[in-house]
Amino acid sequence: MKDLFADRMSKVPRSYVREILKVTENQDIISFAGGLPNPRSFPHTEIADAAAIVLSEASDEALQYSSTEGYRPLRNYIADRYRSAGLDVDPDNVLMINGSQQGLDLVGKVFLNRGDVMLVERPTYLAAIQAFGLYEPEFVSVPLLEDGVDVDILRNRVESLNPKLFYSVPNFQNPTGITYSLKKRQEIGEIFNENNTIFVEDNPYGEIRFMGHDLPPVKSYLKKSVLMGSFSKIVSPGMRLGWIVADDEIMQHLVTAKQASDLHSNILNQMIIHRYLTGNNIEKHLEDIREMYRIQRDCMVAMIKKYFPPGVKYTKPEGGMFLWVTLPLGMSSMELFEAAINENVAFVPGEAFYCDDPELNTMRLNFSNSNPEMITEGIKRLGKAITTMQADKIIKRGK
Amino acid sequence: MKDLFADRMSKVPRSYVREILKVTENQDIISFAGGLPNPRSFPHTEIADAAAIVLSEASDEALQYSSTEGYRPLRNYIADRYRSAGLDVDPDNVLMINGSQQGLDLVGKVFLNRGDVMLVERPTYLAAIQAFGLYEPEFVSVPLLEDGVDVDILRNRVESLNPKLFYSVPNFQNPTGITYSLKKRQEIGEIFNENNTIFVEDNPYGEIRFMGHDLPPVKSYLKKSVLMGSFSKIVSPGMRLGWIVADDEIMQHLVTAKQASDLHSNILNQMIIHRYLTGNNIEKHLEDIREMYRIQRDCMVAMIKKYFPPGVKYTKPEGGMFLWVTLPLGMSSMELFEAAINENVAFVPGEAFYCDDPELNTMRLNFSNSNPEMITEGIKRLGKAITTMQADKIIKRGK
Repeated sequence: MKDLFADRMSKVPRSYVREILKVTENQDIISFAGGLPNPRSFPHTEIADAAAIVLSEASDEALQYSSTEGYRPLRNYIADRYRSAGLDVDPDNVLMINGSQQGLDLVGKVFLNRGDVMLVERPTYLAAIQAFGLYEPEFVSVPLLEDGVDVDILRNRVESLNPKLFYSVPNFQNPTGITYSLKKRQEIGEIFNENNTIFVEDNPYGEIRFMGHDLPPVKSYLKKSVLMGSFSKIVSPGMRLGWIVADDEIMQHLVTAKQASDLHSNILNQMIIHRYLTGNNIEKHLEDIREMYRIQRDCMVAMIKKYFPPGVKYTKPEGGMFLWVTLPLGMSSMELFEAAINENVAFVPGEAFYCDDPELNTMRLNFSNSNPEMITEGIKRLGKAITTMQADKIIKRGK
Repeated sequence: MKDLFADRMSKVPRSYVREILKVTENQDIISFAGGLPNPRSFPHTEIADAAAIVLSEASDEALQYSSTEGYRPLRNYIADRYRSAGLDVDPDNVLMINGSQQGLDLVGKVFLNRGDVMLVERPTYLAAIQAFGLYEPEFVSVPLLEDGVDVDILRNRVESLNPKLFYSVPNFQNPTGITYSLKKRQEIGEIFNENNTIFVEDNPYGEIRFMGHDLPPVKSYLKKSVLMGSFSKIVSPGMRLGWIVADDEIMQHLVTAKQASDLHSNILNQMIIHRYLTGNNIEKHLEDIREMYRIQRDCMVAMIKKYFPPGVKYTKPEGGMFLWVTLPLGMSSMELFEAAINENVAFVPGEAFYCDDPELNTMRLNFSNSNPEMITEGIKRLGKAITTMQADKIIKRGK
């Protein structure tokens, strides 16, 4: 039956994280592998209250078919929130989608012909490789530095390859936790306004900055762009709601693609989230999440400093949910993964996040879904696994 | 910026129904144009109760990320329901999706290379043309007869064109209301089991049979197939939940495509629907919907008989939400649409439902979302519009 399937299916990498998460389902394992928000961050009772109100006051609307673009009051809310942060967004340019992941699929569908060049960060978000990959672009990566993408290489690639898209997570990137500096955002504006490439700005973590200062979206510096946001990290990922902001012409195509994909995003949850957002103190809720994640991130950084051997490098993100570890050259994080599982601790080996030649000594650690006690114990175990592996290598080399 | 978009976007027909529904938003208009379930069919308080229970008992799970395949207890429920109807389905072969519309997108993604031949019914479901169309197949249509697809032509097309897929709605088809006879289902089994084409069976209306007897799914006669179902017509379309049943190898690709598309369907609504289904008398609920729609369908058929001029033909569906009207040859349903809007009544001109040379004298009428009083008045107005148009034509011809 193999010849029945479309060619594109042979080009998708199997989801690493999926396989890895299966291994980590064991209750004894402390997992830094997933990408889950802490369930303590969910507004449980507030969502229950909002659901009760929506289903008693507007049940006909909440249970019926709705518009492809999404629930108007929620789109207004999102546009207002951008405006109050200094970004001029019209609600007509906001499309509700099933988490920002669906945005990747829709953007791929609208822009990519097979063989088109598409730029991604190096490393990049694994599920973006999968979503865009199904439209069969030629991926070309642009290295990330400590303060964001390498703009010299980016300019060169944009000018020489005429790519359709550059996919970027400028705030607290998944997997590295890296954030683009203000200067880089401005430079990116210059590069993209002189060229035909679309900057696809994915911003699921932007609201979870727990230190430093907010920076303007890259969109502020761009004439044309696609910007994605999500309620997954600030309200609930299980409700699968995010949005895309795009200019009129792009939006028209996105709406067509969205309609063909699933008619519209579920209206019940759109109305519940809108009710929740407008009936509660959201700033307080966000502060609580930031405080929780800051404590967990601080704990992880402190424990890495304490338990990891010297020579291990790591990012110190100012927000988001991940940090990125680089082991000494020659060490394999995939080998370490197996040793770590024996110590009942898990992470995602970095090679999952490369669309080309992977750096095998890298790994992603999630700090959002573990409390400080688990982080302390987990990093201790991981440190032990790294130290043991290093010692084994030295012994082997000695023989 | 035009050259930036993917070629596929230039091939999607604009959604007719979308444009038409805008015209019909006027409160004075009696609309048979939409495809909405009657909101009186929604289990309002039961869903509110189920939501309250889920959000108080299992809020962590309902608000968190979940598995791509879907909520296991709901997949078990769906498989059990098939089994009790005589179809052997394993829960592992059930994938939860965002309404069966998403199934069209995923099936297109998994199977269709650009230029592959794909068979559809003539006429066919408009949104299927849009969803599959984005994967750029070559559509070839197979005529519908009163008792289902023309199997002689179908066999010929399958054998001579080696199509990847045949998309079919065997029960109370949208737009025609036609149902495949038992004999045709068996003959289709023979045709497809001897060939490589996948029969894509879309069954959103199967549970809404209000006269006659249930027939086995075409899948019962097939060695390989894709079968789609939906909660949209029996619980709520706004919650956007349907499912695909497929064999292991196909399922594996569908799961990959689903994960790339939006990670998973919203788990909160999956849990609410599961709670609703297991905590209430669903058979009674379905009986209520069937009874309501039967009365409305009977009323529409009776009023057509009373108010439409002779020479107008129409289907008499045994279930579902639509009937299909064929005006005398030479009359244009698009012209009639404009006249009908002036009489404050609306429908969808049939040409929207053809992927090739349309029959311009056809139209679709929805009976699920209007009560008998509205149906009586609306069909009366429509009859007047048809009669007037016919008279005008005769006068013009006379001149």
